[in-house]
Amino acid sequence: MIEMFVREIFFDGSTKSYILILQDGEKNSTLPIWIGPFEAQSISMGRAGTPPERPQTHDLFISLLDHLKIKILSAVVSRVEEGTFFASLHLLSESSEFSVDARPSDAIAIAIRAQAPIYVKEEVFHQIPDHPDFKQLLDSPEETDPPEY
Amino acid sequence: MIEMFVREIFFDGSTKSYILILQDGEKNSTLPIWIGPFEAQSISMGRAGTPPERPQTHDLFISLLDHLKIKILSAVVSRVEEGTFFASLHLLSESSEFSVDARPSDAIAIAIRAQAPIYVKEEVFHQIPDHPDFKQLLDSPEETDPPEY
Repeated sequence: MIEMFVREIFFDGSTKSYILILQDGEKNSTLPIWIGPFEAQSISMGRAGTPPERPQTHDLFISLLDHLKIKILSAVVSRVEEGTFFASLHLLSESSEFSVDARPSDAIAIAIRAQAPIYVKEEVFHQIPDHPDFKQLLDSPEETDPPEY
Repeated sequence: MIEMFVREIFFDGSTKSYILILQDGEKNSTLPIWIGPFEAQSISMGRAGTPPERPQTHDLFISLLDHLKIKILSAVVSRVEEGTFFASLHLLSESSEFSVDARPSDAIAIAIRAQAPIYVKEEVFHQIPDHPDFKQLLDSPEETDPPEY
């Protein structure tokens, strides 16, 4: 597994969706994940670290986990199937580890609020969907629309 | 506290937002709560009871609570302050009850998935903001835009 960081979230005009760009610390590996507008906003807010005026859905998650004394260990992007990314959230309750399946956007929105690491399994890089904009985005991100968040 | 049900969610053209209409079983009390598009969609999906193709954020909540054997007792809309509604989600872990503060939309989206009751405290009805569209909506809901969900 490779630890990756949220490098950027930007709006992709051609698909009219947001793209979350994950990148490893040495910038050797980059992974784009298409996400919804709500998730884009939530990850941006979590990343900025400024508490929202009203707790959003992912903040409620943190509040519940805090109450239950459950620690967020990591978010793991585990596989891609037919262009859909799958992930899980790894948690620690007392001395027992467990995980729940989640969309990458939810797992990352929660992990980023807890400063927990984000991992991507190596096989994901071999399963990346052949999206028409994928190469272009990585080769020349400056040519795409500016980030909205 | 009065038990209320989700009667309808519709789009209010004048404020460009969604309105969740809660109503008691005897239709004596009605409460409109302005919510965001993501929350409107999530409550509608939870209400329909059809599992989504991919678990959404509120489904992840249910999945986590199931894993932890935590029962959802109720969602309670508790007060209104300067036009903002506050709520809490009441939960049962083993034999211990606890609650977490939440936006009404999150509390209701989660409760409705667990078929848990939704309660509104009596004082909320005296604290309802004097929204210009409020009376019109209740008097003639058929004159507003049709629901999108």
